[in-house]
Amino acid sequence: MSRFRKNVENLHPYVPGEQPAADADVVKLNTNENPYPPSPRAVEALRTIESDLLRRYPQPLADVFRDAVGNTLNFDPSWILAGNGSDDLLTQLIRAVVEPGRPVAYPTPTYVLYRTLAEIQDAPTEEVPYNDDYNLPIDALSKIDAPLTIIANPNSPSGTAITIKELEDLASRLQGVLAIDEAYVGFSNSSAIELTRQSDRIIVLRTLSKSHGLAGLRLGFAVAQPSLLSGLTKVKDSYNVDAVAAYVGTAAIQDIAYAQDVARRIVASRGKLIASMTTLGFHVWPSQANFILVRHPNAEARQLYEALKAQGILVRYFAEPQLSDTLRITVGTDDQNERLVKALTFILSS
Amino acid sequence: MSRFRKNVENLHPYVPGEQPAADADVVKLNTNENPYPPSPRAVEALRTIESDLLRRYPQPLADVFRDAVGNTLNFDPSWILAGNGSDDLLTQLIRAVVEPGRPVAYPTPTYVLYRTLAEIQDAPTEEVPYNDDYNLPIDALSKIDAPLTIIANPNSPSGTAITIKELEDLASRLQGVLAIDEAYVGFSNSSAIELTRQSDRIIVLRTLSKSHGLAGLRLGFAVAQPSLLSGLTKVKDSYNVDAVAAYVGTAAIQDIAYAQDVARRIVASRGKLIASMTTLGFHVWPSQANFILVRHPNAEARQLYEALKAQGILVRYFAEPQLSDTLRITVGTDDQNERLVKALTFILSS
Repeated sequence: MSRFRKNVENLHPYVPGEQPAADADVVKLNTNENPYPPSPRAVEALRTIESDLLRRYPQPLADVFRDAVGNTLNFDPSWILAGNGSDDLLTQLIRAVVEPGRPVAYPTPTYVLYRTLAEIQDAPTEEVPYNDDYNLPIDALSKIDAPLTIIANPNSPSGTAITIKELEDLASRLQGVLAIDEAYVGFSNSSAIELTRQSDRIIVLRTLSKSHGLAGLRLGFAVAQPSLLSGLTKVKDSYNVDAVAAYVGTAAIQDIAYAQDVARRIVASRGKLIASMTTLGFHVWPSQANFILVRHPNAEARQLYEALKAQGILVRYFAEPQLSDTLRITVGTDDQNERLVKALTFILSS
Repeated sequence: MSRFRKNVENLHPYVPGEQPAADADVVKLNTNENPYPPSPRAVEALRTIESDLLRRYPQPLADVFRDAVGNTLNFDPSWILAGNGSDDLLTQLIRAVVEPGRPVAYPTPTYVLYRTLAEIQDAPTEEVPYNDDYNLPIDALSKIDAPLTIIANPNSPSGTAITIKELEDLASRLQGVLAIDEAYVGFSNSSAIELTRQSDRIIVLRTLSKSHGLAGLRLGFAVAQPSLLSGLTKVKDSYNVDAVAAYVGTAAIQDIAYAQDVARRIVASRGKLIASMTTLGFHVWPSQANFILVRHPNAEARQLYEALKAQGILVRYFAEPQLSDTLRITVGTDDQNERLVKALTFILSS
């Protein structure tokens, strides 16, 4: 007899992208980390932490960070909930809202973790395929009676974004909660956070992993009306965000100019990378993220992935429907992107 | 219609102890923090963290920390699983093992979070009352058909400990998993970790919050056979432990001499505090933790709690069955404990 629940026994856990050793000589374009360091103010904050901050329990709601986020985004702090990365907030959301046996809906391909989290909750998934242009399947999604619908915008792994108008339209047609995962919003033109003022069934998730270069720190936050956040607060771990993350993250979120400057640099590099990839014959989906999804008409994606890996360049290959002929490539520094383009030029010509 | 699951709607969330502002002039003896700072090596580790550790995703299994724990305890690292505090590991355990509708069993009074976590999972609880001497109710517990039984040892809020032999006896009579929560083991004489070598249904949980003075960092670990840990790994968040916690925690766990020295000081202070409290007429349960549970025959616990608070001394009062006539008091420095005893002397004589 198994010791585990049947759904856990059968679970296919989420597999994160490869993480080579910190000192490995690798161009790492596979997990959408920011190629630039976090704000010097955040690093300085880390260096000046007093040991008492380590010794004592953290604030259960990370008030210092929550206040800073509220001020930055012009929301009352009670509309902000901090998480141990936005993954933690997704877990809370599913546990608070989704009864086992009731479906979680989302368009695919998207962040694979949504499926994993639904499976852990023993909830079926209603996956609605995107078309090849990644237009939002509003009609199909609104016909599903799901307590929770999740849209990543910009979407991963496509990098594509839909309009806020489309999200507003979808929200108005759903009975359940709409979660908008804005992990990559720092590299896009528009955010849905203002929609939360209109509806207590909309929640927006953000992370400091990408736009603020703090993937190692595990820090994200949700924006929603306090009545919706109350359910998440009930199911979250008592001290889900540690004191160091809250302190360092506060310094990072307050350094708006630095985050904007880094984002501008990445968006500029993204433009150059898209141009080079197009020249190499790739189809590149329009990206509003810090990565691009590409497909080559004459080269197998898996072979390209392996040939690049052999040259010390890591990109992401997904053996999944709609994706097995594509690669997802993080936008690195111009230097890294040029190394990638050079390697691909060589591989494609040999 | 509620947006939340019915069990979440009805949930009474865990209420952590009061946390006054960091600069408040308060003798804080209410949440069992260590009165001494963490190891200087841990603080030094924090100061020397490179920004790349922040920028990149952490190791999904916090390998560097896991290896250090394994080496320290003489277990293969595959027998160790790190968590975002031991609360995170308790959540994982319940999600992996307890089907909604199936009971979680534990003796009471104990750590109230066990009840909260069961309620979030929509699992009933089977609570078996301790007698006034806090002897383990082995017969009653072993008659319950529970997929998960949890024993805190030393127990909170009583501070009492049971023998490893009793735990072994209980484990042999249970069909399900036995979790032994050793949050306070650093201040006691004996640990159950060696029992995990005999059975793949025993898991021991530890935290660095108390013995290592790192409550703010959120870091704990489980010791169990890899087959049991595999279920927890499946349901945990992909990057549940941040890179800073793993790095700082590694330095702390390796500084064995420092942790032992701090524990010795606290155990010595505990002895003095128990003597003083006994002189004041309190019944004090025998404690193997960094706190004591006390009951006064002629004074109401809630009134004592409030009178102490008015004097800037925080202790813990629980309005719960079997506890409403007691106070739980963290062992502080000798100085803090003397302030407490002086205040109580004054309150009881007035």
